[in-house]
Amino acid sequence: MKNPSFKEKNPSADRDDDQMIYGLRPVMEALEAGKEIDRIFIGRGAKGELMVELKNQLRERSIAWTEVPPEKLNRFTRKNHQEVVCFISAISYFSLSQVVPSLFEKGVSPFLLILDRITDVRNFGAIARTAECAGVHAIVIPTKGAAQVSSDAIRTSAGALSRIPVCRENNLKAVVSYLQQSGIQVVSATEKGTDFHFQADLSGPLAIVMGSEEDGVSPELIRSCDRLLRIPMIGAISSLNVSVACGIMLYEAIRQRMKSDDIQL
Amino acid sequence: MKNPSFKEKNPSADRDDDQMIYGLRPVMEALEAGKEIDRIFIGRGAKGELMVELKNQLRERSIAWTEVPPEKLNRFTRKNHQEVVCFISAISYFSLSQVVPSLFEKGVSPFLLILDRITDVRNFGAIARTAECAGVHAIVIPTKGAAQVSSDAIRTSAGALSRIPVCRENNLKAVVSYLQQSGIQVVSATEKGTDFHFQADLSGPLAIVMGSEEDGVSPELIRSCDRLLRIPMIGAISSLNVSVACGIMLYEAIRQRMKSDDIQL
Repeated sequence: MKNPSFKEKNPSADRDDDQMIYGLRPVMEALEAGKEIDRIFIGRGAKGELMVELKNQLRERSIAWTEVPPEKLNRFTRKNHQEVVCFISAISYFSLSQVVPSLFEKGVSPFLLILDRITDVRNFGAIARTAECAGVHAIVIPTKGAAQVSSDAIRTSAGALSRIPVCRENNLKAVVSYLQQSGIQVVSATEKGTDFHFQADLSGPLAIVMGSEEDGVSPELIRSCDRLLRIPMIGAISSLNVSVACGIMLYEAIRQRMKSDDIQL
Repeated sequence: MKNPSFKEKNPSADRDDDQMIYGLRPVMEALEAGKEIDRIFIGRGAKGELMVELKNQLRERSIAWTEVPPEKLNRFTRKNHQEVVCFISAISYFSLSQVVPSLFEKGVSPFLLILDRITDVRNFGAIARTAECAGVHAIVIPTKGAAQVSSDAIRTSAGALSRIPVCRENNLKAVVSYLQQSGIQVVSATEKGTDFHFQADLSGPLAIVMGSEEDGVSPELIRSCDRLLRIPMIGAISSLNVSVACGIMLYEAIRQRMKSDDIQL
């Protein structure tokens, strides 16, 4: 995996009150009970009939797992994990393919936020807090390579992550295509932008893409976006914190959307 | 003191590589050498000829000191501090009464940021980083009751605090009056605002006041400001992080100032 998430780098971090389930039978029961899996780790080279069955179940449900050296599983728990440890989501995720049509049906102009590999849990929480204040309808995060909705993220978000729908999608490029086909303008905040953020029309159905702390929005996503927008940098440092940059982007959209009556307060 | 600063609450925090000086003679020598005092603590009820002389020197230089129980001084150092401990500033402060005229002389439209009792060092650093990116000409902080320019604040600011002039003033209300008399519009970001932040004219000479994390801009300052502006809250949480709110305010000003040619890039 190219972009290890915060959690993969810090397997024991922000796990304090997330629910951990281990062992083949318990994990399979959780799956059958329809519990939302946040992350599932399987020992590399793990064998056996039940393990094959578990993997089949995961495939059926399109749940990606991460194969790790068995020592890593021992760091999660010293009990008999039978080469599988999973974490149940702290929130229920929403499906973007349900959220988007339901917004249109309600006559609401969608206002979405896509987070491309935001790995720092604090940044993720801070962004969610700002997004909730800005009335964003849903946040889209990738299944892999990004901070997930842990209890720590919920805390940093001042509770926003329990209020705002979060959609977890396997492929952000496919998300951008889907949104565009649904008539939603997708804009990226990037220093490679040709126009300033306030020079674009941000009224109407809109999704804003914010990129990772290290290297911004990925080139693949940048190529898919309708517009690339740049926040002007007047000083010498030329690097805003991603949660501040996100606030600036969202509130420029708010300003325009209040003028164009996309939002009424 | 009504609003104990982060440092007063955490006397040993963020002190790692700030320079601490203790003992009567060393502190008096530092004063005579023109070193910039960040904070000075004197034991409550401390007596003696040299102590009287030190206090006279401090009064002459308009340096405020904080009287503390002697135990508190022992927490700074176990060495013989003779009831006085001071911390040398990590940066050199600027005088607002020099910064403002020099901006006007250069033909520049002043763009200032006043921080009213921001106590969290991380917030302070994050705000400074944003202010530097936004090309703010100077940040004004109060001498007491706020996070100061410590090495930790400089680190969080990504170096911005070493680049952007910081003015430390005893009385922010007097600062507001001085700026207004100099022809600078002073606006406050406050939930008590009647207009939205983007409804005000933020071109021309401008100072933006951002208030404390706990209770916003103090009522006294609110009464002095030319305009009270509110960032629209569309969600249910209705509370932005102060550094995000500051980014939104500064960049709305930037948007207008780029249009009105107050700023050329």
